[in-house]
Amino acid sequence: MVDVAAATCPFCAILEGTEPSAVVFEDDRVVAFLDRRPLFPGHTLVVPRQHVVTLGELSAEQVGPLMKVVQATARAMESALGAEGSLVAVNNRVSQSVPHLHVHVVPRAKGDGLKGFFWPRTSYVSDTARGEVAAVVRAGIAEELAD
Amino acid sequence: MVDVAAATCPFCAILEGTEPSAVVFEDDRVVAFLDRRPLFPGHTLVVPRQHVVTLGELSAEQVGPLMKVVQATARAMESALGAEGSLVAVNNRVSQSVPHLHVHVVPRAKGDGLKGFFWPRTSYVSDTARGEVAAVVRAGIAEELAD
Repeated sequence: MVDVAAATCPFCAILEGTEPSAVVFEDDRVVAFLDRRPLFPGHTLVVPRQHVVTLGELSAEQVGPLMKVVQATARAMESALGAEGSLVAVNNRVSQSVPHLHVHVVPRAKGDGLKGFFWPRTSYVSDTARGEVAAVVRAGIAEELAD
Repeated sequence: MVDVAAATCPFCAILEGTEPSAVVFEDDRVVAFLDRRPLFPGHTLVVPRQHVVTLGELSAEQVGPLMKVVQATARAMESALGAEGSLVAVNNRVSQSVPHLHVHVVPRAKGDGLKGFFWPRTSYVSDTARGEVAAVVRAGIAEELAD
């Protein structure tokens, strides 16, 4: 059966080589290529060949190979591009432009203007409020790991 | 020998239980707790017990256990907190406030105001320029994976 979502996926087209891209790594499970609209030059997308939408859906067998390339790419931002650090980020569903899991690896420098990302922070109104949220998240993680 | 960096690390103190925190998951390799200054309530930090600064330094044996909890936490943002999606992000060195690897898992909703994160995008001045950057990154990843 044809996977319609995969058949119309722009990233699957890149992975299959029918859509040109600046590929920087490729093996039988993972492909990495430059983002066409980078935050900074060198901004790379690391993508599993398996067509899944979110990180949470990726099979355990695929996570290791994907993360090995993500780690190497993050180190390469510093060793090859001379970045001072990197941002590794996945948008699951919200702010996700292409519905095929992709890990952004972005070279960073101090004062590059991205510092605003983790602002504005908020805070919990009370320890009780924080404890209530913690209880919900704790139960949710336990349930997800039990599945 | 005492690891001085680990001995003074605020996250190691949380992992050892000497500093209180809203723990939402804990096993022998990974601890997750609520960020005290969340982007949105439920914003969780997933942290390996191994004291390393960046994702690129984490040993292969630790990556699988860490990512399993990251995946479960990302799913729990939706299943337990009712989020529409999530952001999974690691700041390596730049914008990294605590020098102990931590994976942010942030619940997201459409219109939550974080959309600006991946802006402003830029673009390569030419395909040649993009190709040159790709060559540097490609060589860098190959070298990192060869190590």
